[in-house]
This record gives sequence, structure tokens and C-alpha cells, in this order.
Amino acid sequence: MALLSVLTPLLAAVLCLVAGFVLVKARGTTSTPARKANGASEADFRPWVDQDLQDDTDTVREDEDGDGVDSSEEEDHPHVPYSPTRYPEDTMLEKSREFYTLMNQRRTVRFISPESVPREVIDNVIRAAGTAPSGAHTEPWTFVVVSDPMIKHQIRQIVEKEEEVNYRQRMGDKWINDLAKTNWIKEYLDVAPYLILIFKQTHGILPNNKKRIHYYNEISVSIACGILLAALQNVGLVTVTSTPLNCGPQLRLLLKRPANEKLLLLLPVGYPAPDATVPDIKRKPLGDIMVHM
Amino acid sequence: MALLSVLTPLLAAVLCLVAGFVLVKARGTTSTPARKANGASEADFRPWVDQDLQDDTDTVREDEDGDGVDSSEEEDHPHVPYSPTRYPEDTMLEKSREFYTLMNQRRTVRFISPESVPREVIDNVIRAAGTAPSGAHTEPWTFVVVSDPMIKHQIRQIVEKEEEVNYRQRMGDKWINDLAKTNWIKEYLDVAPYLILIFKQTHGILPNNKKRIHYYNEISVSIACGILLAALQNVGLVTVTSTPLNCGPQLRLLLKRPANEKLLLLLPVGYPAPDATVPDIKRKPLGDIMVHM
Repeated sequence: MALLSVLTPLLAAVLCLVAGFVLVKARGTTSTPARKANGASEADFRPWVDQDLQDDTDTVREDEDGDGVDSSEEEDHPHVPYSPTRYPEDTMLEKSREFYTLMNQRRTVRFISPESVPREVIDNVIRAAGTAPSGAHTEPWTFVVVSDPMIKHQIRQIVEKEEEVNYRQRMGDKWINDLAKTNWIKEYLDVAPYLILIFKQTHGILPNNKKRIHYYNEISVSIACGILLAALQNVGLVTVTSTPLNCGPQLRLLLKRPANEKLLLLLPVGYPAPDATVPDIKRKPLGDIMVHM
Repeated sequence: MALLSVLTPLLAAVLCLVAGFVLVKARGTTSTPARKANGASEADFRPWVDQDLQDDTDTVREDEDGDGVDSSEEEDHPHVPYSPTRYPEDTMLEKSREFYTLMNQRRTVRFISPESVPREVIDNVIRAAGTAPSGAHTEPWTFVVVSDPMIKHQIRQIVEKEEEVNYRQRMGDKWINDLAKTNWIKEYLDVAPYLILIFKQTHGILPNNKKRIHYYNEISVSIACGILLAALQNVGLVTVTSTPLNCGPQLRLLLKRPANEKLLLLLPVGYPAPDATVPDIKRKPLGDIMVHM
């Protein structure tokens, strides 16, 4: 007991040291997550490299060069000549004006007609989307086309339930009246002849069963969706570019997609309803979005 | 001293408790970053909601509904009728096939001709890109068009320097020979008449100087880039869809863009060189990218 009495101050001091060390260590770990996540070692630390983890484009160690031909793969493929159509300058100007005019008529339309749309048109707009470039040519997209009324209705139920939760959280209960309610009622999910759900594949499975990470999968699949929207506009169909919040996992299970796929966008597609309206909003002029140097 | 001897075991016990409490608290903080980041309170915790922070589409609390009309804004804008061109079914089919054929001829081309391209064509493809939908109609994109040879060369120097670092880290020094070297030499950055650098605006500044977060800015800007690629293909120009790794901050400073803008893509644009070649790769057939239900 006497020995213990003598030792206890020492014991307390040791405990203090241990606690202090653990705390410092814990703080050290949490204060440098960006560098750890970047996988950067002390030696290759470069201060100008953006440490913001939110910037996806700076936190991966792979190059995306359209059509996916990253260095190692490019060496595997022989090159072939490429000579696409070349237009005279006035034709180019004319075509560039026409394409802008066509795209500029595109609007997000929530009033979709229930009329049927030829299935081959849907196939062709998805074929067009599938020509997009992708990191290391992984083509990391799956387009799920839903025309079955039962499945469309199940999708609507999932989306509306989550939307209601989202609106209640955002708006607070005082906002929950009939007016606000229209914000989470998505009739077009039942009405539109087709729902196209676009999934991004976050990784693939190699022949040896190992994961192959799909770098830049979100950018690649979003680019494909841009081409899809252009293709829809080209044939006179309309859609709503929606990202149903928090519905991804439920919709993935409903549509029996594997765990490496995550919902990016949900596009209800059809003709606009005869009495369709859109909010009277304008786009920024060229001078506000372009800088020339 | 006798009192101290009696008290020290107690002191040690208290210290142990304090240390334990601090540790538990520290661990608690680091083990639930997903929920904290989601801003979810204990009450609205929903186990099916994807907790994976990498999935951008599930970690924000705002809805993107194309053309940016989120609920609150939509109420501010009167609706106007919308009746775009409607085509007969056979015209739709014909147009959908033509558009797919056109897009399917697009390839990433690294051999770009130095010939000049009419500036108005570049303006028009960017106008077309600017028609893309965006979260809450924020239009969170800046297209920097560079034709000045000095600035193009500075861009090349920045990109090649970072590319070399990336390749050395990836490949290891044994890979560093003349063959691998071609992977980080980007001659097209000097040669192409235009470089288009696309920045995503991660947030905007409100009139009261507060930040306005641009939800889904990466998806929105990537969709705009998909339309841009379609517009380029439509006029017979080629590009390389590149995401220069770790160059964003340096290029942002060079081009004097504000801190809320982050580089998403760098597109060298021009006619293909007369002797241009592309790797002989194929695209997935429709059945591999589409599922119908």
C-alpha cells in the first residue's frame, strides 16, 4: 500500500501523458484527411494542388482522355485513319446557328402527354448517348427504360415519399399546405410513356474478379446525358432533368441494378402535353458565360 | 502527504474517466462523418439513405429539376405556354437515326490541325452548351476560350509538368523511357487554334454577399459539356475530352478565374489533321447499356 501510494502520482503522470498523446494523435489524423485521402506522401506534397476533397477532378490519380484510351490501353489498340466530313466555313456557320437555335428551344417540361412514342426513337436517343467519351473508355453507364405502368407507379411512390420528407425538412411545417404540396407531387412519373433512369457505374469487375474503379464516372455519365438531352430535343420530345434526392438506393433495388451502380438522373420522356407551360425564365447572354483570351 | 496518498488513486480514476470520455467523444465524431455531413439529425435518420459520401447525388438537400426552377423560384416566375415543333413518327425515326449516326462518328482526336476556325462557330457551340439545364437554374459554368499562342503555351507547360509527375508516380521510373514520354507530351495544346477550358462554379455570391451553394454543379456543367461535344461534332470539329489532373488551381490562376470556379474539362478544338488517326476501339452495343422494363 505504501509502495502504491508512492507510485500513484507517477501512475497519474503516465496516464496524463498517454491521454495527451492519444489526443494529439487523434487530432493529427482528423486535421489532414485531404492529404491522406489523396494518397499523397510527404515527398510528393505539392502545395498548389487543390486539397479540397469536394473537387472530384483533383483527387484521383488517373487521366481521362475522352473515349477512354488511357495510355496503357492505347498501346493495345492499333491506330486507324480518321477523316470525318469537312464542311466549308459558311456551312459550318449555318450548322452552328441551326444547332444553337434547336437547343435553345429546349425547356424542362413537367406537363408530359401520355401518348405513346415509338420505341425505336427511344433506342436511338440512348444509342446516341452511348457515343459519349468516358474515362479509360469504360462506358460506365446503364440506361434503364421503364414503360411498365406498375413499375412507373412504384417509382412515383418512392420519389414522392422522399420528396415529401425533403420538403418538410427544408420548408418547415408552416410551408406544408396545398400549394407547397404540388412540389412533391410528380404526376409525370405515371403519365410519361417512358421513364429513363440513368445509373453511373462507380466501378467495374475485371475478369479476375477484382474491382476496377471507374475514374470520372460522374462526369462521363453526365456528358452522355447531355448528348441524350440533345438527341431528345432533336426529335421533339421533352423531359425533366431530375435528380431524385435520396431515392437512389431504393430505385436501384426496385430496378434490380447491382451495387456498383448509382442513380444519377431520372428523365420522364414523352411529347409535351397540348397545354404545357414553362416558367418564364431567361438564359444568361454569351458574355456572361464566355471569356476570350 | 497522507491525504494526497489517499486521494491519488481517486485522482488517477478521475483522470482515467476523463481520458476515456474524451477518447469516446473523439471516436464518435470521426466515426459518423457521413451523417454529420448530411446534416441529418437523430430524428430523421433513414437507414436506406445512401451514406456513401462519394455519391454526390445523395448528400445534398436541394432538388435539381432542369432549367433550375426549384420550388421557391418557380413561384416567382409566371408560366407561359410551350409548344415546340412536333414531327410525324416517321420523321422522328429518321431524325433519331441521323443524329445517332452523326454522334457515332465522333472520336477523341489528338491530331489537331493548326488551321484557323471561324470565331463565330466557337461562339455558337458555347451558346448551345449554355442552353443546358442546371440545378435551380444557376447556369454554373464559365467557358474560357484561349486563342493567344503565349497563353496556350503556358497552359501546355503547366499540363505537361503535372502529367509528367502523374506518369512517374503511376508507372514507376522503369516506365520512363521515350515511349511513355509521349503520354505526357501534349502538342495539341500549342497547335489547336482554340483551347476551351470549362470551369464549374461551386457557389455563387448573392446580392447580400452571402454564398449560394450551386448544388449539382458538376452534373450540370458536365451535361453542358455533352451538348458542347454534340455541337462540335455537328460542325465537323474535333477535340480531346481531357481532365488535366491537379492542374486546376494553376490554370485557374493563369486565366484569372475567381476561387469559386474549378476546372472541369480542357478541350483543344480544331479541324482534325489531314493524317489524323484514332485507336481502333469499339463501343458497347445497345443491349449492354440499356435495360427495358
